[in-house]
Amino acid sequence: MNYQAPLKELNFVLNQIAELPSICSLPGYEDCSVELVEAILEEGAKFAEQELAPINRQGDQGARWHDGEVTAAPGFKEAWQRYVESGWVGLRAPADYGGQGLPALVALAAEEMWCSANLAFSLAPMLTLGALEAIEHHASDVLKQLYLPRMASGEWTGTMNLTEPQAGSDLAQVRTRAERQADGSYRIQGQKIFITWGEHDMADNIVHLVLARLPDAPAGVKGISLFIVPKFLVNADGSLGAKNDVRCVSIEHKLGIHGSPTAVMSFGDQAGAIGYLVGEENKGLAYMFTMMNHARLGVGIEGLAVSERAYQAAVNYARERVQSRAVGSADAAGVPIIRHPDIRRMLMTMRAQIEAQRALACYAAAALDRAGHHPVPEERAKNQALLNFLIPIVKGWNTEQANEITSMAIQVHGGMGYIEETGVAQYYRDARITAIYEGTTGIQALDLIGRKTAADNGAVAQALLEEVLMTVRELDGAGLSDLARNLRRAAADASRAIGFVLEHFNARPTWPAAGSVPFLKLMGIVLGGWQMGRAALIAQRLLGEHGADVVFLESKLTTARFYGEHLLPQSGGLAHAIVEGAESALALDEAHF
Amino acid sequence: MNYQAPLKELNFVLNQIAELPSICSLPGYEDCSVELVEAILEEGAKFAEQELAPINRQGDQGARWHDGEVTAAPGFKEAWQRYVESGWVGLRAPADYGGQGLPALVALAAEEMWCSANLAFSLAPMLTLGALEAIEHHASDVLKQLYLPRMASGEWTGTMNLTEPQAGSDLAQVRTRAERQADGSYRIQGQKIFITWGEHDMADNIVHLVLARLPDAPAGVKGISLFIVPKFLVNADGSLGAKNDVRCVSIEHKLGIHGSPTAVMSFGDQAGAIGYLVGEENKGLAYMFTMMNHARLGVGIEGLAVSERAYQAAVNYARERVQSRAVGSADAAGVPIIRHPDIRRMLMTMRAQIEAQRALACYAAAALDRAGHHPVPEERAKNQALLNFLIPIVKGWNTEQANEITSMAIQVHGGMGYIEETGVAQYYRDARITAIYEGTTGIQALDLIGRKTAADNGAVAQALLEEVLMTVRELDGAGLSDLARNLRRAAADASRAIGFVLEHFNARPTWPAAGSVPFLKLMGIVLGGWQMGRAALIAQRLLGEHGADVVFLESKLTTARFYGEHLLPQSGGLAHAIVEGAESALALDEAHF
Repeated sequence: MNYQAPLKELNFVLNQIAELPSICSLPGYEDCSVELVEAILEEGAKFAEQELAPINRQGDQGARWHDGEVTAAPGFKEAWQRYVESGWVGLRAPADYGGQGLPALVALAAEEMWCSANLAFSLAPMLTLGALEAIEHHASDVLKQLYLPRMASGEWTGTMNLTEPQAGSDLAQVRTRAERQADGSYRIQGQKIFITWGEHDMADNIVHLVLARLPDAPAGVKGISLFIVPKFLVNADGSLGAKNDVRCVSIEHKLGIHGSPTAVMSFGDQAGAIGYLVGEENKGLAYMFTMMNHARLGVGIEGLAVSERAYQAAVNYARERVQSRAVGSADAAGVPIIRHPDIRRMLMTMRAQIEAQRALACYAAAALDRAGHHPVPEERAKNQALLNFLIPIVKGWNTEQANEITSMAIQVHGGMGYIEETGVAQYYRDARITAIYEGTTGIQALDLIGRKTAADNGAVAQALLEEVLMTVRELDGAGLSDLARNLRRAAADASRAIGFVLEHFNARPTWPAAGSVPFLKLMGIVLGGWQMGRAALIAQRLLGEHGADVVFLESKLTTARFYGEHLLPQSGGLAHAIVEGAESALALDEAHF
Repeated sequence: MNYQAPLKELNFVLNQIAELPSICSLPGYEDCSVELVEAILEEGAKFAEQELAPINRQGDQGARWHDGEVTAAPGFKEAWQRYVESGWVGLRAPADYGGQGLPALVALAAEEMWCSANLAFSLAPMLTLGALEAIEHHASDVLKQLYLPRMASGEWTGTMNLTEPQAGSDLAQVRTRAERQADGSYRIQGQKIFITWGEHDMADNIVHLVLARLPDAPAGVKGISLFIVPKFLVNADGSLGAKNDVRCVSIEHKLGIHGSPTAVMSFGDQAGAIGYLVGEENKGLAYMFTMMNHARLGVGIEGLAVSERAYQAAVNYARERVQSRAVGSADAAGVPIIRHPDIRRMLMTMRAQIEAQRALACYAAAALDRAGHHPVPEERAKNQALLNFLIPIVKGWNTEQANEITSMAIQVHGGMGYIEETGVAQYYRDARITAIYEGTTGIQALDLIGRKTAADNGAVAQALLEEVLMTVRELDGAGLSDLARNLRRAAADASRAIGFVLEHFNARPTWPAAGSVPFLKLMGIVLGGWQMGRAALIAQRLLGEHGADVVFLESKLTTARFYGEHLLPQSGGLAHAIVEGAESALALDEAHF
């Protein structure tokens, strides 16, 4: 049940894979340094291990709703208070509003630790930062001055009110209404569902960002506006005024993340909730899109973070649990199950995927920082395109695999894994939401084949494969030829799949759509393998240096090799399904299911 | 939430795939006929749909423990009463003791419906039949006369008390003690955990089968004896006597199957529980093994049954839920999500696997019936060997895939899938135990590579592959060449993997062990594909007959083709991991995880 932040691994990935030193040299990040980041992560690890991890199990008891008020799970309010006091909320919030303005790369590393320690808790700051980012980028200075400092400090939390019963993946269906008022404010009326941390007692105020439609708005996605609707109205001096016409109708009974209240929110039951327009009318969805990359990257981190926690639990149990003699041994005495080959295979499968996912996610986070801060416009554009391509993969692949990895953690525990007291079942339940919210895997996959692959005629995808092949050649040169061979074959499968998507995207769009999720997984496996190849090369180089951490680096090499032999070979089956399987996937008449 | 028994599919699989007519002609099954079975399944479908399915959700509230007594979940006691009255318990119990003596094949088809409708409930008859079978095969006539009729009727239920905290997969570690008494009975003392339906209020008595060790027993598995330990002692006339010294200490708080109380049982807290030896001393584990095939086949059915229920829920939701425009359509109007290609792919993936698993499981059940009833000894032996090989595959593959299939059902539901009220999350939680109990997938896989593959030097495995290749040739001959090609390639992968297991099993046993679960999955995929190939051939033939059910048969062909293009191609990656990946799976020092 204990959580130990993987600091050595995080520092390796940040410094070596994501090249943190180069991120710290970007304009705006000059105050950041490798030493500072190391110190921050060390402090963060303590907070995650000592404050957040211990209340994760009790958080599973859930928040309680009573008459519109929500009481956070036991210990959460106190932990939030300490989280706020320690200044963790504003790690990546802009310095202008009291944040620390650190790179996304650094903040995401810290977020991994919060999510591993306590996924349900971590969603409160995650949502707050998402709302903060939207306001920062698009709201007026008056609104920014009024809201951002208290959100960056964590005095107030934030939410995203997008979904309605008929408007899930399809936000064009949003029906919540907004009416202009004489004083420049708006009155909001409607019901939103699935609002994470939509109501709670941890903070003084809750800043709801709400998508709504003006009476004269055009139909569809181009008629949606974004509003700030605070739980308590805010006076001009920043003090709190009257309660707004906003009510939490109920909270959901969910499969997991019970510590995170998921609210049904009703706006404007009486006179209408008072809201303030963010930016311009009818541009709400576009504003949402600007922060989507960050949010989706964050959910990708959630997936790998829960996987990491589950992996640690599985390793610990496998070391302690003694059962059955060793395979092939004449000695009848039982051994710790970590010595059983299939347990070992499961642990390696978990470990290899987690390392690959972390590397790819941090690589994407570095692109996010470069896209925002690089002094050369072409570099910004290049990194933005790279980021855009990687986002659906990191989000979709990390979270889909989180289901498999947390399931393996249960399997390692045997019957004990099915008992809730063991704790590992909670990771399985908690993880399951990550492939759904912030865009299901299917939505990510459509984004990947369409806007991210077909739209530029495969330019970014193929450029990435070129880089993969460069790594293949380096691996060959470094004598890591097994990994090189496996990566080369997988890259060829990916190339074939990209070709299929490009060939059919316009003429027979349902074909690549039918294979879109296998395509996303294939790209995740190949690009994850690429990062493992890069990590192996770096590890081999560092092993030659004086004072090298031999155990860590050799373990990295072993894990990369395992990835090559157990995970990369899945590419062939996926490519086959994509390229050959579209027709049969679509052939059955919908009445005949 | 409704369940509709797939009667058409069940009859197809029973009659065509498992050749029920030939089973009905076996000695002892003469009273069975295709028409009778059809009528039984129709009645069973009604019971499953109308009595068991509607109380599945409320069963999730769980049984309640109070001071050693367990109250079954709401509605369960009444449903059990009706189940007993309708005579469902004894479907495959011997006619000599009041059962109906039907083939295992028929009973398993009915069991699929119970498990789909209400997995937690279905475990009560499942365990009762397991206990009944052990008593029938090994106990004295006196014990049989005393216990079997009331178990076959369902007046009493049965349990299996194997596991202890230190003795899970490794039953050699059983410590529960048995002491001989002057009257020929035994006194039992010890604690058992994970006892399914170990205590409840649905039946008048509970017949516990308990593994225990005599004071002078040899160490290890050869010193374990099997005892009947009834909750209430049974007088010579069959009436109930005093309460035995057996107590339910607590019931577990589990991830799923909440309606099935999982008990910690304490035997002999006071004077020692009174037990009756089954068969001979020290042969308890061997007796357990004789009914293991049936039990494991049953759990394989559980896996596919929950998958079927989840599939139906996903199809229903996908038809009803309207969201987003159709891919490639200019019309902005939303469509039922079943029209979205990725939803379609998920539904087909679920459907294809379920059909393949059902076919393989019923094929195995027919082998079970032939192994027990065929008049020719060689045929009995051949079918027993076939059954022995298939059991770990049906058990392991069906249940591992149940995790994936129920997860897909959640994914089809999007955010609604994560809300417990929707019901599909329960299938995901319920299914998760099936890959663990009655031998984890790792245990099945070791059995498969060892006793079932290496022990006969691959004879059965290779004979099966010969049959697969025969089907490949028939597919080619019938113009189903896509499926033929995909099945041929997968069979070659399986052949390579078998070769690897045989080559290294003795000299380097940890190598095949490291790939044992991928090997089990590979065999499941290939043999499932074989059954889909057989089904396709049969469907094509039947399509030429007068009055053929064209929709059903063409759907079968489409589903088989999908299986060939989406599932069979996974064989390459699995074979690679088995053949190339053993070293890397075992390379990391256990201290370095």
